[in-house]
Amino acid sequence: MNGTFTIGVFDSGFGGLTVLRALLATLPHAQFAFLGDTARLPYGSKSRRTIARYAAESAQFLVREQGAEFLVIACNTASALALDAIRDAVPVPVLGVIEPGAAAARTATRTGDVLVIATDATVQSHAYSAACTVQGLRAMEKGCPLLVPLVEEGWVNHSVTAEVIRIYLDELMRDASAAGLMPDTLVLGCTHYPLLRPAIERAVPGGVRVIDSAEAAAEAAVRQFGAQVETPDAPKASEPILRCFATDSVEKFERLGSRFLGRPTGSVGLVDLGG
Amino acid sequence: MNGTFTIGVFDSGFGGLTVLRALLATLPHAQFAFLGDTARLPYGSKSRRTIARYAAESAQFLVREQGAEFLVIACNTASALALDAIRDAVPVPVLGVIEPGAAAARTATRTGDVLVIATDATVQSHAYSAACTVQGLRAMEKGCPLLVPLVEEGWVNHSVTAEVIRIYLDELMRDASAAGLMPDTLVLGCTHYPLLRPAIERAVPGGVRVIDSAEAAAEAAVRQFGAQVETPDAPKASEPILRCFATDSVEKFERLGSRFLGRPTGSVGLVDLGG
Repeated sequence: MNGTFTIGVFDSGFGGLTVLRALLATLPHAQFAFLGDTARLPYGSKSRRTIARYAAESAQFLVREQGAEFLVIACNTASALALDAIRDAVPVPVLGVIEPGAAAARTATRTGDVLVIATDATVQSHAYSAACTVQGLRAMEKGCPLLVPLVEEGWVNHSVTAEVIRIYLDELMRDASAAGLMPDTLVLGCTHYPLLRPAIERAVPGGVRVIDSAEAAAEAAVRQFGAQVETPDAPKASEPILRCFATDSVEKFERLGSRFLGRPTGSVGLVDLGG
Repeated sequence: MNGTFTIGVFDSGFGGLTVLRALLATLPHAQFAFLGDTARLPYGSKSRRTIARYAAESAQFLVREQGAEFLVIACNTASALALDAIRDAVPVPVLGVIEPGAAAARTATRTGDVLVIATDATVQSHAYSAACTVQGLRAMEKGCPLLVPLVEEGWVNHSVTAEVIRIYLDELMRDASAAGLMPDTLVLGCTHYPLLRPAIERAVPGGVRVIDSAEAAAEAAVRQFGAQVETPDAPKASEPILRCFATDSVEKFERLGSRFLGRPTGSVGLVDLGG
C-alpha cells in the first residue's frame, strides 16, 4: 500500500479480467487487486444462496486483506444474484456489471427491444430484464451454457463455436419475434463472451448492435471513481499496479488469464477462502 | 438404518448416478446413499489439493452421517486425484473407477493398446496410464472438456456433439498412431460419457471396442461386496433403498439426475459441507 486508490475486481474465474483490462486502460494511476474464485467456479450453475456466500467471502478478502476502497463485481452471475449480499458484507461502494450493461443498451437501441445472452444462473435471475425495465426497455434473455467451455477450450475461432452461436441466436431471435419484439441490440451478459465478439458479430442479423457489459462496467467505474484516482493531488502509482489472486491452481490462472487480460497476469497469489 | 448393508456412492455431480444405476440393478437388497457435491463441481478443472479436500469431506458425510459401510467413488477425477486422501479420511473400504476401468480394458483388448477419454484433471493425473501399465497395457489419454457441458445441455444426440466427438477422437487416433500404438479399445473415463455412448460408438473406427468405466466399477463392487449384501442371512431391504443428497440446488439435481439414473431420484436432501 502506498496511499494510491485501490480498486478491487472480483470474478468467479478469469472472465472478469476483460473488465480489468478496460479499467487498466482508462485508470492508469490506480492500484488493482483482482480475485478469481477459481476453486469454486463456475458460479453460473449454482444456487443464489451458495453464490451469495462465495461472493461475500471473496469481496471481504479484497477489502480486508487487499485494502480495496471500491469494488467492481466483474461477474454477471454474482452481480445478478449476490450484489445485495456483497454490499451487506463490505463497507465500500460496490459496482456490478448488469446495470451498466442495461444503461449501455438504452443508449444503443432505437426500437427499445434488447436481447441478452448469459449463463443459465444469470438468466434465471432475470436481473437483466429487471435492469432493462428500469431503463424503459423490453428484454429477451437466453442462457448459453456451452459458450464458456468453448472459450476455455480455446475454440474462439472454431467452426463448432460458430455453429453453437448460430443455434443459440436463431432460437433467441425466434423467441423474440414470437413475443412481438423487434430487437436491434444484443447484450453480452457474461465476461467470457467478449472473446467471442467477432464470431457473435458475424452471427447477428444486420442492424443488431453488440454491447459488451464488461466494457460498459469499466466505463461506469471510471465515471464514478475516475475523479478520485486521477485528481492532481491524489497519490499516484507511476503505472497501474496489479496484483492477481486465485483460490485454485495459480499456474492455470497465469496461463489462461493472459488471454482475457491481453497481457501477462504477473505472479498470481493463492488464497484459501475455506471452501 | 435397518441393519441392511449400506453402500455410499459419491460424485462431484450427477454423472456418478450412471454407476449407481448399474449398482441398483445388480444389488437389489442393499441400501444406497448418494452424494453429489454439486456446490463445488466441476472437480475436473481444479487442483489435486482442492479436489482431495472436497472429496474427503464428502466421503466423511456418507460414512459418518449416512452409515455407509463401503464407498464407491463414482467420479473419475476424485478417483484419479484423491483416492488416497479419501482412504485416509474414512475407516471403510473405498473403490474408485480407474482400476476397474483399466481391468476391463485388459479383458477387452487384443493389441494391448488402449485409448482413454476423460476430463483434463483426470488426464493430467495420468491415473489411467498408471493403472493400464499395471495391467500390462499401453494407454494414450485425451482430455475432452466440452463433452460434460454438452451432456448437461442435453445435446446427447445433437450434430454439434457428434462433430466435437469426431474432432477429439481424430486427434486422439492421430496421436496414438504417431506414438506407434494400434489401439482397439476406448475407455470412457468420465461418468458423464455413458450418455454419449451411442454417439461415441458411431465415431470410433471399426474394430475399436468401447469400455464404460462406470459399468466396470459397478461390476467390481458386486464382486467385492455382493456376497455381504446378498447372503441368505443378511438383513435385506425388500427393494433397493436410495437416498440422494446434494450440496447445491436439489431441484436441479432432481431434474437432471433422473437422466443419469434412468429413474426418478426421489426427494434429494440438501447438505452443507461448509465450502
